[in-house]
Amino acid sequence: MNREKRTEIAELGEFALIKHLTKNIEIQNASSLLGVGDDAAVIDHFGKQTVVTTDLLIEGVHFDLVYTPLKHLGYKSVIVNLSDVYAMNAIPTQITISLGISNRFSLEALDEFYEGVYAACKKYGVDLVGGDTTSSQKGFIISITAVGEVAPDKFVKRSTAQKGDLLCVSGDLGAAYVGLLFLEREKKIFMESPQVQPDLEGESYVIGRLLKPEARADIIQFFEKENIVPSAMIDVSDGLSSEILHLCEDSQLGCMLYEEKIPISEEMKQAAYKFEIDPTACALSGGEDYELLFTLPQAEYDKITFNEQISVIGYMTSVEEGAHIQTKGGNTHKITAQGWNHLQ
Amino acid sequence: MNREKRTEIAELGEFALIKHLTKNIEIQNASSLLGVGDDAAVIDHFGKQTVVTTDLLIEGVHFDLVYTPLKHLGYKSVIVNLSDVYAMNAIPTQITISLGISNRFSLEALDEFYEGVYAACKKYGVDLVGGDTTSSQKGFIISITAVGEVAPDKFVKRSTAQKGDLLCVSGDLGAAYVGLLFLEREKKIFMESPQVQPDLEGESYVIGRLLKPEARADIIQFFEKENIVPSAMIDVSDGLSSEILHLCEDSQLGCMLYEEKIPISEEMKQAAYKFEIDPTACALSGGEDYELLFTLPQAEYDKITFNEQISVIGYMTSVEEGAHIQTKGGNTHKITAQGWNHLQ
Repeated sequence: MNREKRTEIAELGEFALIKHLTKNIEIQNASSLLGVGDDAAVIDHFGKQTVVTTDLLIEGVHFDLVYTPLKHLGYKSVIVNLSDVYAMNAIPTQITISLGISNRFSLEALDEFYEGVYAACKKYGVDLVGGDTTSSQKGFIISITAVGEVAPDKFVKRSTAQKGDLLCVSGDLGAAYVGLLFLEREKKIFMESPQVQPDLEGESYVIGRLLKPEARADIIQFFEKENIVPSAMIDVSDGLSSEILHLCEDSQLGCMLYEEKIPISEEMKQAAYKFEIDPTACALSGGEDYELLFTLPQAEYDKITFNEQISVIGYMTSVEEGAHIQTKGGNTHKITAQGWNHLQ
Repeated sequence: MNREKRTEIAELGEFALIKHLTKNIEIQNASSLLGVGDDAAVIDHFGKQTVVTTDLLIEGVHFDLVYTPLKHLGYKSVIVNLSDVYAMNAIPTQITISLGISNRFSLEALDEFYEGVYAACKKYGVDLVGGDTTSSQKGFIISITAVGEVAPDKFVKRSTAQKGDLLCVSGDLGAAYVGLLFLEREKKIFMESPQVQPDLEGESYVIGRLLKPEARADIIQFFEKENIVPSAMIDVSDGLSSEILHLCEDSQLGCMLYEEKIPISEEMKQAAYKFEIDPTACALSGGEDYELLFTLPQAEYDKITFNEQISVIGYMTSVEEGAHIQTKGGNTHKITAQGWNHLQ
């Protein structure tokens, strides 16, 4: 936080605060007919279908302000929601943002948070059109709702994968979790010996994946260009295992996942070894990757083969066959969703 | 809360919890193409404009679970958002709901909350289409987003009132605030002497206005039937003064409000006298009425004159004339927004 100046939120009052925080909004979508400043926003979606998603982030549960810069937190809070919209094969167009703020926050701190929000809005062409700002007795609370649009019948659900479809994922997995391990380690060292300088050299990739994730707009644009509509899709927020099981359960299918096909970056692999943990386990159970996991008919394989951002990691089987992973050693295990808690 | 059975939320896990809470959803709007259970909901709004609004409610700031039954809280959380949609002259069609839950909540307690949510959805013909459920370290956190639809160019802003327009309000004002005074008084007595029975006899109207408010769908239907489009509109959540000043400021106008025209129920008046406070002050600064405050061209006066649910309380003047109230005694004062804190 900015040490030079501290303006108390209470000095301003709610309405002046909202005005201050929203004064630089620039509307980017013609469909944003009416934005911040009324009872509700108005969005014009003639001929398109509206997609809406919402996320609640709570200090101490979803983020730790000790090592999360507020600007990054603002950016990430938006990204988390946009990722859900892209996972419907839709384009995000508007967001609303509600904040619960305790009195330990200054106006300058909130400005930093909003800088991140506006940076994400600008990068992804999304308009901030409304919200609610209130006091909180304890902790910082962020609730964001994203609205998007999709051509009729082009939206992609989780429940429509078909037996034999290819199982694909964008980018690489597990890095955000290893980034978190580094930051938790440094926090612990700092709490015990504040004079020790943090040692995060060479770990900017994994830490960046945690603190400043991106949503895969490029993959949705690629689908549009190549005329691909995935048969099912979900974003990877809770870890690959958990998301695969969602696809399997909702589509009433099984799957075969190949460990050797799971995309893992060199930086993540080296970082995981420093903690003596298995990189594959990080990819399976880490989460917060905000990559897209989707299924495609085998006939579409040629269209994706030259896209280095897409990996085919397995295929869908019948529900009777269950959801399995074949390890590099050739063994086959049942996929279970264990999440972050299991790893910690 | 139910004493007979207590199921810990942690036993279930997030996904089973969401399934449990959403298993009885019945979709009421053809525009709800896809509801709970995917990354986002999908809404079809061909030929209509989409309205979106959001509210964040935090335990200890917006509600006190000591005297707020969870079912009522669920109901009211929805109403607060629907009221914002109606205040745009739009019809609410979908909501999403995000909850932060501490571990002192049982599944049975959450079920009670959702009973209220579903009751409001059913009454107002709204579909619950998504949300997020997470843990909270302290307190119950509720974030609701409502989506609605309105015919192109029929939505009503706060900023388009005209000089000379009639200033009108639905229902009656100030009762919710007096209801709160009773409940706060009984809480204090209970904290000091738990054996004393609560004395709320005869106060069911004002307490009902606080704990189980309604949104004015009927007024919007009346506008539609009578072919009325208000020139500006806002809902009364922060007290009449505050909302009038919003209309004046956003429309760059002044106004003259007549104290004797402010609609006040007999029950509220009697209840206010028990606390030795001025009923008019409760109406001006109390808030949480969820009535609609709107402006109309004078030519429309004949259309509303027989509607007992609408009161003409003043008229809009030029910005130079400022916002004033003429008291019953004939004096004129400047209107100031003081809110609940001032009264407490």
